[in-house]
Amino acid sequence: LKKFVIIVAAGAGKRFKNHIPKQFECLGGKPILMHSVNAFYEAEPQIRIIIVLQSDFFQCWKDLCVKHDFIIPHTLVMGGPERFHSVKNGLSHIPDDGLVAIHDGARPLISHEIINTAFIAADKHEAVIPVIEVNDSVRITEGSEHKAAERKKLRLVQTPQVFKCSVVKKAYQQEYDLRFSDDATVVEAFGGKVRLINGSIENIKITRAQDLHIAEALLKARTLTS
Amino acid sequence: LKKFVIIVAAGAGKRFKNHIPKQFECLGGKPILMHSVNAFYEAEPQIRIIIVLQSDFFQCWKDLCVKHDFIIPHTLVMGGPERFHSVKNGLSHIPDDGLVAIHDGARPLISHEIINTAFIAADKHEAVIPVIEVNDSVRITEGSEHKAAERKKLRLVQTPQVFKCSVVKKAYQQEYDLRFSDDATVVEAFGGKVRLINGSIENIKITRAQDLHIAEALLKARTLTS
Repeated sequence: LKKFVIIVAAGAGKRFKNHIPKQFECLGGKPILMHSVNAFYEAEPQIRIIIVLQSDFFQCWKDLCVKHDFIIPHTLVMGGPERFHSVKNGLSHIPDDGLVAIHDGARPLISHEIINTAFIAADKHEAVIPVIEVNDSVRITEGSEHKAAERKKLRLVQTPQVFKCSVVKKAYQQEYDLRFSDDATVVEAFGGKVRLINGSIENIKITRAQDLHIAEALLKARTLTS
Repeated sequence: LKKFVIIVAAGAGKRFKNHIPKQFECLGGKPILMHSVNAFYEAEPQIRIIIVLQSDFFQCWKDLCVKHDFIIPHTLVMGGPERFHSVKNGLSHIPDDGLVAIHDGARPLISHEIINTAFIAADKHEAVIPVIEVNDSVRITEGSEHKAAERKKLRLVQTPQVFKCSVVKKAYQQEYDLRFSDDATVVEAFGGKVRLINGSIENIKITRAQDLHIAEALLKARTLTS
């Protein structure tokens, strides 16, 4: 069974300090994006890796690869205006058979266990996403009004979102819609059925400077206990 | 204007390691609960502090106060079977006039700014809660089914939730209802109107062992930048 991963790191990092795209910031001495790539390579050594970046940052990434002796084989693909277009560009580089994981480059702490479990589940169920429960109370706003939501019914969605290649490639032929909030919603809009598996609170997305401190702490705790 | 805070730390810590209630675990060398109390004392030096604990842990807390030279004046109140009853016990120790903040003992990183802002807003609006936006995609489950939720309409609710004493004390005279997920829902069920203010992603609730690593990192980052 052929396995692929598309690691999406095509954001411009507007919410991050210094306007350096966050995927190039260092975490434990190594760029965030390299952690994400490593995780898939270690979990699934035969996997084919596609990294989607804005072309402005191709040279920056290549320089970082040299600097950090990063030699995991991968294909660089150009990002688009929205995440949807970036993923679509990535999908154009994979065949119709096999399974593909689509992963946020800014989730460097993804565990091997979730990667393995998601691929096994996707082989059975065609579309699989990791989710976690919500700890806090939740409100739904509607204009200036708001009311309590049922926390226990809600799940926060993470990546990797893993699909049969044939299914997700066809789904991405649809016109772009603003309601496509992630890959699962694209597949659902095309009639696909999505299966939930357990994610992990450690699998955070690094969006703001503060998240990097949190990731450093989690990485350190992981090193101590392994 | 009289100000009060009820710090609720009456959980038994079932989800935490070693079954030690999490509020007594150390963060930066000091029990989590002491950080929470300190924050209110520093933000509002005239505040009257009520701490709600299960009575089994009164002695443990007193010993910790001696050990850590903790001399901020406070009243200890016995917890009840559910959070609702613990808060109600706390409210029985405050008068009908003034403002009261109700805060999770397990949110030690609450900022002075949010505390001050919440009190000012509660003086105007009678009921105020801090909320933050949701970063991840969200799903709503319904039995074994699920669908995408509108992330942008959702807010995660934190504490302190701050109220006019008269309003919240009356609201807590209601019969307990399983749908009371926090103090705001109790006040709303009694006809009160709740105002949202900005919380902070740093204001995490320490529920599991992993959260303590995150809190350590945030505390360290705060020390470095202040």
